[in-house]
Amino acid sequence: MEIDLNADLGEGFGIWRLGDDDALLDIVTSANIACGFHAGDPLTIRRTCAAAVDRGVIIGAQVSYRDLAGFGRRAMDVDPEELSAEVLYQIAALDGIARAMGGRVAYVKPHGALYNRVVRDAAQADAVVSAVAAFSPALPLLTLPVSVLRDVAAERGVPTVTEAFADRAYTGDGRLVPRREPGAVLHDVGEVAARAARMAAGGTVTAADGTEVKVAARSLCVHGDTPGAVAMARAVRDALTAAGLSVRPFA
Amino acid sequence: MEIDLNADLGEGFGIWRLGDDDALLDIVTSANIACGFHAGDPLTIRRTCAAAVDRGVIIGAQVSYRDLAGFGRRAMDVDPEELSAEVLYQIAALDGIARAMGGRVAYVKPHGALYNRVVRDAAQADAVVSAVAAFSPALPLLTLPVSVLRDVAAERGVPTVTEAFADRAYTGDGRLVPRREPGAVLHDVGEVAARAARMAAGGTVTAADGTEVKVAARSLCVHGDTPGAVAMARAVRDALTAAGLSVRPFA
Amino acid sequence: MEIDLNADLGEGFGIWRLGDDDALLDIVTSANIACGFHAGDPLTIRRTCAAAVDRGVIIGAQVSYRDLAGFGRRAMDVDPEELSAEVLYQIAALDGIARAMGGRVAYVKPHGALYNRVVRDAAQADAVVSAVAAFSPALPLLTLPVSVLRDVAAERGVPTVTEAFADRAYTGDGRLVPRREPGAVLHDVGEVAARAARMAAGGTVTAADGTEVKVAARSLCVHGDTPGAVAMARAVRDALTAAGLSVRPFA
Amino acid sequence: MEIDLNADLGEGFGIWRLGDDDALLDIVTSANIACGFHAGDPLTIRRTCAAAVDRGVIIGAQVSYRDLAGFGRRAMDVDPEELSAEVLYQIAALDGIARAMGGRVAYVKPHGALYNRVVRDAAQADAVVSAVAAFSPALPLLTLPVSVLRDVAAERGVPTVTEAFADRAYTGDGRLVPRREPGAVLHDVGEVAARAARMAAGGTVTAADGTEVKVAARSLCVHGDTPGAVAMARAVRDALTAAGLSVRPFA
Repeated sequence: MEIDLNADLGEGFGIWRLGDDDALLDIVTSANIACGFHAGDPLTIRRTCAAAVDRGVIIGAQVSYRDLAGFGRRAMDVDPEELSAEVLYQIAALDGIARAMGGRVAYVKPHGALYNRVVRDAAQADAVVSAVAAFSPALPLLTLPVSVLRDVAAERGVPTVTEAFADRAYTGDGRLVPRREPGAVLHDVGEVAARAARMAAGGTVTAADGTEVKVAARSLCVHGDTPGAVAMARAVRDALTAAGLSVRPFA
Repeated sequence: MEIDLNADLGEGFGIWRLGDDDALLDIVTSANIACGFHAGDPLTIRRTCAAAVDRGVIIGAQVSYRDLAGFGRRAMDVDPEELSAEVLYQIAALDGIARAMGGRVAYVKPHGALYNRVVRDAAQADAVVSAVAAFSPALPLLTLPVSVLRDVAAERGVPTVTEAFADRAYTGDGRLVPRREPGAVLHDVGEVAARAARMAAGGTVTAADGTEVKVAARSLCVHGDTPGAVAMARAVRDALTAAGLSVRPFA
Repeated sequence: MEIDLNADLGEGFGIWRLGDDDALLDIVTSANIACGFHAGDPLTIRRTCAAAVDRGVIIGAQVSYRDLAGFGRRAMDVDPEELSAEVLYQIAALDGIARAMGGRVAYVKPHGALYNRVVRDAAQADAVVSAVAAFSPALPLLTLPVSVLRDVAAERGVPTVTEAFADRAYTGDGRLVPRREPGAVLHDVGEVAARAARMAAGGTVTAADGTEVKVAARSLCVHGDTPGAVAMARAVRDALTAAGLSVRPFA
Repeated sequence: MEIDLNADLGEGFGIWRLGDDDALLDIVTSANIACGFHAGDPLTIRRTCAAAVDRGVIIGAQVSYRDLAGFGRRAMDVDPEELSAEVLYQIAALDGIARAMGGRVAYVKPHGALYNRVVRDAAQADAVVSAVAAFSPALPLLTLPVSVLRDVAAERGVPTVTEAFADRAYTGDGRLVPRREPGAVLHDVGEVAARAARMAAGGTVTAADGTEVKVAARSLCVHGDTPGAVAMARAVRDALTAAGLSVRPFA
């Protein structure tokens, strides 16, 4: 059995840094690299791509709304035609740099507010899928299992890879408990690591209401920009290995 | 004999427009399309690429310093490593959109202050050439005949295509008279059209000091953002055709 | 009887221009000047302030979401605390330049998507009102008569001035017909001018459903960035004068 | 005898932070607060102003070129008229927020590449001085003792306050050894603290060539964005106090 670990990387801009990219790149197998719209200047992109290629970590385009000041975390009513062009621009820019470093964009994952929006907004989901299809119809989208984005991608023949979150509480119907609710984010390293192993090996997680729900995920997302993030990511990886899983990229 | 006509296009941003792109696209054979750093949002880029492809106009990456507020016209001491990554980012972003519209980036032309800087600054010229080579070593740079950029490209095996300016005064040694000097820019449509034809057919131009200087150019640059620009571009094209030249892209 | 005419001005950025500011400044009595977040670089702001002061046109801060690429026309879920700081920043920056040119910020008018949002979103309305109160509690907000922004301002003791739109269709309850609906915007110069005079002199307008609705407005907004905008603004002003109204700033 | 300690503060942007502002605010007496052009979003500005006011630290406008990607560290050929408007915009924006927090802009200090440029470029120096004079002719500029900016300010009647750098090597004629030269920056905490005390108490420093040079400074600049910065700033302050100096703002 195989599982992938993905994390957001290259989320600095100019002089500013966020998270410990080098440490995370030794743990994850897929790097969601910021493409310049919420973070990620070209030189940071190049260095992050080079570091990922060095370690055999695959590269994903972490596409976003154009919002440096808000780090792409604010919902925006972007016209779908414009959004599609923006997503295509970001994928292409990252891919060009990745290729110069010996890699390529192997998947696409929307970031922040766009990630949340395309779970339920068909017009923006279609814009993202159109952009991916225009760049390369074989390029997979990394999504939640229950998501309008996944449905739209299926309709258009764009492949998807599903992911789960070991440090997030789930509802009984397999969705994430919204961040603003108490208990939405788990902080205990041992508990998160154990959940990760059960998600990956057994395909289930205990929801906030106590029921067992199915979580079919080929990738687990770990976070990099919080205190203790690296230690938690390391614990998750160790738990996966201990459970007999092979931690490998999906592409 | 063949000659190319190039112009800067797609230089709007968001709600703002600059020049009459549709009219110019019916006249020129090469479009220097802004890539987002001095102008050119992704949707404008996509529309400009689509319009160029429709008319058989080839697409060039008009790469620039990151300077929307100054339209890329202000010299900047950008670190060469950073500049190289920025240029690569721009070429790749434009190429991805161009390919989705059925075209591709066929050449690279620096814009504004970067264009002027790489005529004499070897470090920044090297940064631009490195970016082009990293993207594709076969991609030509559109340059002045006398230019450090051209020398650096030759050393690295990156092809160059030379251009001339029918509406600019030349010095006796074949350089452009700086814009701030009187008489640097010619405004008489008939004179400019006649110069264009002589440049293209005879390879010479009368310099400001009255001497005849050689101007080996495979492309002539016409401007699009001034009053009367379209009429002048049309007159130049008509004069070239009347002189028996075939107006065709160089790539 | 007195009526004010307001229009959006200074909405260029860098090399780009929008609308005919000089012509409009000869017609309107209040200038909503862009403060740099959706349009308006500092030099454009300074020139627009100087031109307004020259003509006795009062200056308003046209505050916006931070969105140059979308011209502030895209709804954004900006955190109220952050929005309040952004609005205060914009008012203060404009006021400093206005004072250097012999004027001052005499009122505040939200722009685009922010204008629409604060009609119904109490949290963002409160953020705007807080910013105005923090800068100067005596500074009026220019708003629609029926608006959460107006209610919040009243609660906090921030004065408001109401405005109406001669070229927009109204609903039977005195609101604007949304732009996406057919007939939402009126284009006939004579009709718009006549409506303006009736709004200002009689305080009523014929709604889309044929009923007469009250429109208590101390200011009428005219648009500057569409073809024929200047002619329509001129016709509106002439109709107001012909109806015996004195066209004067409200402050 | 009195001496001021100044440091750059509020140099984050959006999600990104730089340096330990809270720790530095307990040490310095003047805060050079970023105004949004090289760093500093409005909410960060507001929080930094509030924290400075809380501690009795005076607020300076750290004005910069418009260059978030380069942190204002890249020389730019900005037109003086435009630069002057940009500087005025920044001072005014910061002052409006500072006043809302109970403070005000008490001085102006150019940042990064602009700081270096106005030491020798009269046109840009004049642009900065014009902006300060337009905002308030009584507002002092914080400058190096030997500087074109200081000369231009003197000509125009704008006051200046001079500063020195305890952690920088000096040339025999009282200028800073350029950063790119070996030994330009001192890292030994004890040495820097001792130099600070001698600069402030005795008005002299030992230059790189061994000579004693005069350093008339009412303020010492300490850095905040390097490892060990807080400890060094604390050591400098302690050495000043131990030498019998009163560490107080200059305004």
